[in-house]
Amino acid sequence: MILQKKEIEQLESRYRATFINSLSGYRQAVLIGSKSLNGKSNVSIFSSLIHLGANPALWGFICRPDTVQRDTLRNILETNSYTFNYVQTADFEKAHQTSAKYETDISEFDAVGFTEQIIESIHAPFVQEAVVKIGMQFLEKVEIKLNGTILVIGSLEYIELNENCISNDGFVGLEKENILGCVGLDAYYSPQFLGRLSYAKPEKWTTRI
Amino acid sequence: MILQKKEIEQLESRYRATFINSLSGYRQAVLIGSKSLNGKSNVSIFSSLIHLGANPALWGFICRPDTVQRDTLRNILETNSYTFNYVQTADFEKAHQTSAKYETDISEFDAVGFTEQIIESIHAPFVQEAVVKIGMQFLEKVEIKLNGTILVIGSLEYIELNENCISNDGFVGLEKENILGCVGLDAYYSPQFLGRLSYAKPEKWTTRI
Repeated sequence: MILQKKEIEQLESRYRATFINSLSGYRQAVLIGSKSLNGKSNVSIFSSLIHLGANPALWGFICRPDTVQRDTLRNILETNSYTFNYVQTADFEKAHQTSAKYETDISEFDAVGFTEQIIESIHAPFVQEAVVKIGMQFLEKVEIKLNGTILVIGSLEYIELNENCISNDGFVGLEKENILGCVGLDAYYSPQFLGRLSYAKPEKWTTRI
Repeated sequence: MILQKKEIEQLESRYRATFINSLSGYRQAVLIGSKSLNGKSNVSIFSSLIHLGANPALWGFICRPDTVQRDTLRNILETNSYTFNYVQTADFEKAHQTSAKYETDISEFDAVGFTEQIIESIHAPFVQEAVVKIGMQFLEKVEIKLNGTILVIGSLEYIELNENCISNDGFVGLEKENILGCVGLDAYYSPQFLGRLSYAKPEKWTTRI
């Protein structure tokens, strides 16, 4: 099937949203934990985590101010604190349920049955059931003028995971903890490991490592 | 295992690069095709595809100007044209080999054994073996000042895929074509479909669709 620009534009609006989003492929499913200044906790699923660099360790995510995600964004801008939490495939229905539009004063932790966990000096709550927990400090908000979306950038301040997932060279094998992947807004995946390949060089083909 | 900010900063530099990048999770593996003004074709693997919106259909990717990816970025800025190509899991070694630092005048298509495909009025080449082919028009380059990375934004101008992958509501089931996923710079995955869930509402739990 071939679609040219004009045909893409003419797709029915909900169909196009589902089509273009799912077409953009496999993603990490991440629960973002945050807490307002007056202490209301929030957790919501996102699929737009972006690695920006390792030195310093910086990650971003994309936020649309006009959606349910506004509580998360407002909390981050108020407190500079948020958490990324990866759950296991067995928890995919709970994870998805965090995308429901709960009232601001309702904690999605309670509503969907995840446990709120507070760690040391970090303001934002973690998901206790998560097998990877990352504490983030907000650094910069970049507005994408083309469509009003926002790239939220922060630095990694705290990392917790099972060290059995980490290879000698630092590689994290997420599949060892059955960590949940996703596509689009509602499809969930369990990625199976195929292999790791050596640093590619022109004169020599890649080999398994 | 727990790492605080200071311990993250003190990790050996290559270890930290592998650790932080792989920790950011599952990604779509995408081959970006481009061609210089003087006709030299390039194809290189990326894992930073970002869905930005469906109306208009906008995607971004992250580029580091100081790496092998500079040929791709220069070609895009010169010609405004590039392509996203998804290959099948069976092609993961070829796909990885496109990350080798070939000289600018060598086509990675020839070097790794993919076939260059030209489609209609699109300047940049496609990967003929790809099962999803997307033609992009460059729109905007956003510099992330925190670390000098660049977010390259474009609009989808051309989409080609097997219509058997597309559900009635527009959802693209990438697993039906065994499309390749990845983690970090060198690990490849075959995502297994778990399920799709209904639009989440506070009063009613998600169900399978």
